[in-house]
Amino acid sequence: MARQALLAALDEGWADPARLYREGRRARLLLDAARETAAESVGCRPDELAFTPSGTRALHDGIAGALAGRRRAGRRLIVSAVEHSAVFQAAAAHEASGGTVAEVPVDRTGRVAPEAYAAALREAPEDIALACLQSANHEVGTVQPVAEAAEACAADGVPLLVDAAQSLGWGPVEGRWSLLTASAHKWGGPAGVGLLAVRKGTRFRPAPVDERESGRAPGFENLPAIVAAAASLRAVRAEAAEEAERLRGLVDRIRARVPELVPDVEVAGDPERRLPHLVTFSCLYVDGEALLHELDRAEFSVSSGSSCTSSTLVPSHVLRAMGVLSEGNIRVSLPRGTAGTDVERFLEVLPGVVAGVRERLGAPEAVAAAAAEAAAETSGLVVDSLGKRCPIPVIELAKVIGDVPVGEVVTVLSDDEAARLDIPAWCEMRGQTYEGERPAERGTAYRVRRRA
Amino acid sequence: MARQALLAALDEGWADPARLYREGRRARLLLDAARETAAESVGCRPDELAFTPSGTRALHDGIAGALAGRRRAGRRLIVSAVEHSAVFQAAAAHEASGGTVAEVPVDRTGRVAPEAYAAALREAPEDIALACLQSANHEVGTVQPVAEAAEACAADGVPLLVDAAQSLGWGPVEGRWSLLTASAHKWGGPAGVGLLAVRKGTRFRPAPVDERESGRAPGFENLPAIVAAAASLRAVRAEAAEEAERLRGLVDRIRARVPELVPDVEVAGDPERRLPHLVTFSCLYVDGEALLHELDRAEFSVSSGSSCTSSTLVPSHVLRAMGVLSEGNIRVSLPRGTAGTDVERFLEVLPGVVAGVRERLGAPEAVAAAAAEAAAETSGLVVDSLGKRCPIPVIELAKVIGDVPVGEVVTVLSDDEAARLDIPAWCEMRGQTYEGERPAERGTAYRVRRRA
Repeated sequence: MARQALLAALDEGWADPARLYREGRRARLLLDAARETAAESVGCRPDELAFTPSGTRALHDGIAGALAGRRRAGRRLIVSAVEHSAVFQAAAAHEASGGTVAEVPVDRTGRVAPEAYAAALREAPEDIALACLQSANHEVGTVQPVAEAAEACAADGVPLLVDAAQSLGWGPVEGRWSLLTASAHKWGGPAGVGLLAVRKGTRFRPAPVDERESGRAPGFENLPAIVAAAASLRAVRAEAAEEAERLRGLVDRIRARVPELVPDVEVAGDPERRLPHLVTFSCLYVDGEALLHELDRAEFSVSSGSSCTSSTLVPSHVLRAMGVLSEGNIRVSLPRGTAGTDVERFLEVLPGVVAGVRERLGAPEAVAAAAAEAAAETSGLVVDSLGKRCPIPVIELAKVIGDVPVGEVVTVLSDDEAARLDIPAWCEMRGQTYEGERPAERGTAYRVRRRA
Repeated sequence: MARQALLAALDEGWADPARLYREGRRARLLLDAARETAAESVGCRPDELAFTPSGTRALHDGIAGALAGRRRAGRRLIVSAVEHSAVFQAAAAHEASGGTVAEVPVDRTGRVAPEAYAAALREAPEDIALACLQSANHEVGTVQPVAEAAEACAADGVPLLVDAAQSLGWGPVEGRWSLLTASAHKWGGPAGVGLLAVRKGTRFRPAPVDERESGRAPGFENLPAIVAAAASLRAVRAEAAEEAERLRGLVDRIRARVPELVPDVEVAGDPERRLPHLVTFSCLYVDGEALLHELDRAEFSVSSGSSCTSSTLVPSHVLRAMGVLSEGNIRVSLPRGTAGTDVERFLEVLPGVVAGVRERLGAPEAVAAAAAEAAAETSGLVVDSLGKRCPIPVIELAKVIGDVPVGEVVTVLSDDEAARLDIPAWCEMRGQTYEGERPAERGTAYRVRRRA
């Protein structure tokens, strides 16, 4: 549908909709029609909706415009700890220009408690300019209590911006939000189109502006892509309920079977209040990038929030905020139309792939005997993992823990940022006591007390 | 070519080039190849070139990033008076945040004198952060002395940003520029793609950023459009020299014939140092919007810089800066491949269209007799055009000038912003003496002394 609409609009909608000649007027009609279609799917008025070049730009420009419009009201921005990185980029720009940012924490499922959101609104309430909350998390699929947050914001006169990128293809965002953003390629539409809805009455001052998109999204409109975006949103919505139920069943199967098939796995996110198509899990003693490449060889295209797969060597901020394991992290996103047989084949392939990676890394199961030998050589109760990257520090900890007397402490030295997240997460999974960290001569010393 | 490349890239390049699975790697290869192709056409290194969502965004982000990168060097921005409005939008945002902006004037052809540019660099030189100059003007086609400006900037250690939107399809921008912007749809590429080149060694600090496009253009890449943009740029360049010569001949014909065929026309812009495909002229006593609609009915799609066709009721800032007539303004842009027969038909149609619009408006030629009668009724030497829009004030001035004794003054009262430009321009065209303006009880009083 997106492709058909794009091709048609390449013929009919190449001209500048700001021009008065016939090709321009035709382009204007197409743009108006696309805006009406998309606004209906969003649940707003057409004149409240602007098309932006991407979801990221909608977030950057939406947050900046709302903060500028509310500058006299305050300089405080409230965000959840698990927003999309584009929200944190906009927040960093806000801080750089003298504003403040407050983060609302999440629980281990990645969910913001409505009470925690309300509490953040009560802190320095006279200074709050804007609050942001995603409709659902992009890494673990957990659905957020947007309607409750919107009520709390409305009661305090604070505009709420909802990042609906993950959920808009499945349905409108309920509740009294003030601003909403989304991204067309997330619902199967084309690249190059984001949505920014700004409800009437919401103060908004973008800069710099031109005369396009009500002054909210400058630059020549990407009309063929906009037409494709609107048409595909309507199309996916028409079958959203049925497809959501089907994909939900497939994800339920992955959530249930992976921990049965693969030892030492943690499935992340809320098992009930979640997106239909997304599931994330982490495998102890596995390098996320190696796992991803092995799955790619088996023709499964998955993502990872492990630090090993990130150019910044920092693990996913979402997993970190949740306090769950990030090593060997895999995110499976089922496209609409995914066949159940593909999911079954994934479940067949996965255990062998994980075991293979663990074996190559010398993980505990594979080297039980070797570990016992190594333990004899361990010089006291310090594991030196300096210079070694995720998941090696945790693998080395797991190798020696059996040799630590119950009640005693082992110290892991590591300079890998992922260890900060993964050693406490391993302790939680393994029933050991994490005693905290302290700076070491090189890197950081993580202390773990053997409980059993 | 753009369409073929777009279609191919829809199949091969839909995935996220930041991902490690095979579809992502394939997308990355396409992106890298497009960047190499485009960089070769621009004349820069691939790692100096970022793809943005539009030419406007390239200008907004390029100017903001260069200003932020040079914040410690100074807060002064130099622009020519005839830049694209996106430059002035970025300049306004800079002023709003405490910066200063200096405008370099142009002559009646719309050209910046190299000496004037150099003089602007000598004013407050310790505070200059950035200088901007278009490669060629988007309304009148005049080519700017970019290489000279670049030399002057380089001598002073000031980065020069060149807006190459109008000329990049015809050839690279020579000279030691530091930043360059362009827009794909201007060379026949798709909507949704701009270019931002930042030479190595140029200080640049964009905000907010993500990990895409070297941190210079956030948001999911519009890869199919990027591939189409690069392929089409290479394709138009391959035949640019030949096509430029052909179109230059057609524009020469328009520039020569229009003043012969239509009385009271002023052709704008430099007749030699100009873009091959663009020509702009203004017709006295004509409403630009009416002219545009009549030409549209004759199947010619043209633009206008008259205030009557602008939603802001302000005439084109380019024509204003040049001090030339804006009423009845028509911009003809010949697409590549325009047939000579189409130009001949345009020249056939135009005189009748202009005469028709003039007749309906009661312009001098059409109502010579009526004007003489009206003159008898003229109450002294004041023409009250309050509440009347362009081109009526000039038409009424033209009607009475014959009745003003030589050496005497007639005063035109007008509250239309276009009169400020068009009454002096009319005086220049008609050999009358413009004596200046003063505020009146309502609107402005423009004084014209009859010379002959």
